[in-house]
Amino acid sequence: MTGFSDASLRERAARVVPGGMYGHLNAALHGDAYPQFFVRGEGARQWDADGREYVDLMCSWGPMIVGHRNPRVEAAAAAQQAYGDCLNGPGPVMVELAELLVDLIPSADWAMFSKNGTDATTQALMVARAATGRTKVLVAHGAYHGADPWCTPGLSGTTPNQRADTIEFTYNDLAGAEAAAEAGDIAAILVTPFKHDSFEDQEFADADFARGLRALADRIGAALVIDDVRAGWRLDLRGSWEPFGVRPDLTAWSKAMANGFPIAAVTGTDALRGPAQTLYSTGSFWFSATAMAAAKATIEILRETDGPALIERAGTRLREGLAAQAASHGFVINQTGPVQIPWLSFEGDATLDKGMRWAAACLGEGVYLHPWHNWFLSTAHTDDEIDRALLGTDAAFAKLRATFGAD
Amino acid sequence: MTGFSDASLRERAARVVPGGMYGHLNAALHGDAYPQFFVRGEGARQWDADGREYVDLMCSWGPMIVGHRNPRVEAAAAAQQAYGDCLNGPGPVMVELAELLVDLIPSADWAMFSKNGTDATTQALMVARAATGRTKVLVAHGAYHGADPWCTPGLSGTTPNQRADTIEFTYNDLAGAEAAAEAGDIAAILVTPFKHDSFEDQEFADADFARGLRALADRIGAALVIDDVRAGWRLDLRGSWEPFGVRPDLTAWSKAMANGFPIAAVTGTDALRGPAQTLYSTGSFWFSATAMAAAKATIEILRETDGPALIERAGTRLREGLAAQAASHGFVINQTGPVQIPWLSFEGDATLDKGMRWAAACLGEGVYLHPWHNWFLSTAHTDDEIDRALLGTDAAFAKLRATFGAD
Repeated sequence: MTGFSDASLRERAARVVPGGMYGHLNAALHGDAYPQFFVRGEGARQWDADGREYVDLMCSWGPMIVGHRNPRVEAAAAAQQAYGDCLNGPGPVMVELAELLVDLIPSADWAMFSKNGTDATTQALMVARAATGRTKVLVAHGAYHGADPWCTPGLSGTTPNQRADTIEFTYNDLAGAEAAAEAGDIAAILVTPFKHDSFEDQEFADADFARGLRALADRIGAALVIDDVRAGWRLDLRGSWEPFGVRPDLTAWSKAMANGFPIAAVTGTDALRGPAQTLYSTGSFWFSATAMAAAKATIEILRETDGPALIERAGTRLREGLAAQAASHGFVINQTGPVQIPWLSFEGDATLDKGMRWAAACLGEGVYLHPWHNWFLSTAHTDDEIDRALLGTDAAFAKLRATFGAD
Repeated sequence: MTGFSDASLRERAARVVPGGMYGHLNAALHGDAYPQFFVRGEGARQWDADGREYVDLMCSWGPMIVGHRNPRVEAAAAAQQAYGDCLNGPGPVMVELAELLVDLIPSADWAMFSKNGTDATTQALMVARAATGRTKVLVAHGAYHGADPWCTPGLSGTTPNQRADTIEFTYNDLAGAEAAAEAGDIAAILVTPFKHDSFEDQEFADADFARGLRALADRIGAALVIDDVRAGWRLDLRGSWEPFGVRPDLTAWSKAMANGFPIAAVTGTDALRGPAQTLYSTGSFWFSATAMAAAKATIEILRETDGPALIERAGTRLREGLAAQAASHGFVINQTGPVQIPWLSFEGDATLDKGMRWAAACLGEGVYLHPWHNWFLSTAHTDDEIDRALLGTDAAFAKLRATFGAD
């Protein structure tokens, strides 16, 4: 692959793709310094279309979790692909993968598969609505649950009817959620395991909030649905609220499930098995075998190696390193969210101006991270990779200090 | 892959997947004779989990179009996969694929990519709504446009609000469509290029109907959206209504676009480029490079070889063979739809009882086809493969005659 540059590709793309790019990978949203096109990934590294190499702290916005081009995942996928991917029925691997999920996840008695996180959150709500015969869903204000018209954060192209079945509450405000539920007709409470909204510091769920939502769902006869699309597989393989002892009725999974291969899943409890059977919910490629083989290999690796602990080690090293660097350069920063899915903001930087400049400087130093969306780490982020990233972030802090002078 | 059978897999699946399976590949919907699990595809053949080999006349319900495991498509995909699939941005191949679509399709000035047909039909309506500021969509009664809550043929798990923006007309009834449009607030007319509803004979679009919908859309300022998810790439690479001289504002593509690799696209005209830019519509795997490389190779093969003509040749041979066989066995059959996307019903067989028995007999003779959903042919259906299929269908007609006696 030669004969192009990021600039030449952007110019060509501007002619044949609206705006040159769209969606979460639209570099225009990340800031001017960001490359738009990427050509290669390997382990914890990615290379852009200009051949620049980065320690990748975004993991393709979540999907990569055991290293780009993980040999075992690639081999499992290639072996399945050599037989067949999209056939007239699912392969045996669909059963094996569903069995693995049911074995691993205490709240899972069954699994259904699809292609993207939005498919899974949408399907989970369909199951909840089929089970309850109700229409409304409670969601936290500002939470991202996908880009279907019912949930996309942009209203363009959506209709009021498509948004009318949603009632909002404030994350970590149990009393507010309880008050919102008084509207009645609540089929489901849909919640992310922690507050990972863009543009602001991440926030853990209070244990009382998590347990309170479980109790609220039980009291009103609604389904508690955890949207583990973003956080899933990095915090706790059993489900992200398992440490609270809170088990959902339904969970939406995707992103890191197959280390980049396209797959999503809903898991649920026995009580919802019957309602789930009543849906007509499907897609041309939802039962394709290759991504399922990749998912099975990815999850097996994570289980055998205690992947979340490895990623936690990497995240702790990164967080401690960044904290020391910021202090030594005289910056007050906030590091929020789980260390496996971290984010960094500068104190008092409401416009994110400092954050944008620092992130751009990191890019220039060969570290790919993001100024207003949480980052993601993986098992490929060894101590050496984190230390390599920290070299770049330190230089970026120094550059920022030179730009801004003393605080 | 050993140690299983279709029966053992079904038994295991029943424990970990609601109903054992769901969606369009649920064999319980096809009739008792149908295998549920498949292990391998090659050219025009597939093998089920019991090792039975079939001439595949379903092409995985559409996605396969240049032969299972087409060497050129597989090589293009593997070459891309060796660099990277799901990265922090799209690969150069996204630009190349969009350029190819714009070059090939007269109504396409731009392309947006996603993963499934439902993504594409949903996204096309979002563009139309963003462009018009209106909410309603006109669709033909009984037409399949995907399985999102707004369009799934099953109402379970959907809400009245999710269905409230749709107004129905009758396919090929232009006056009815015009009358339906009088409701006002019409953002789009969404239509399949021919009537390919399940359980009934297929129906071509009248040229006057197609041209009339184009004129109606222009008159009321709505977008004409062709849902070419099912028919696309088999009839006319330029778009399925190009032979009528009818060009849509937006087209939804998927299924056969990448010979089984998961991808979908919306193409549109310059007038809709700006509105398309305003959407927030995205998915974790929508910009993954491997399926795009597969799509590029698939479309290039179809263009270089005039794939639709090859598939038409196969379909004509099959249709003529089936007609002669039915006559010789004394059955009156209806063969409807384009020969590339054919279907066969028995005259007077309102319950589909004869059709189900004949299809089951075909399965027993090593021919995989469907009793109530249209079939799909591919460029891998050489004369020899069609003749092999016809051996099986002839034996199935004979078996059916033995069961039913003289008509």
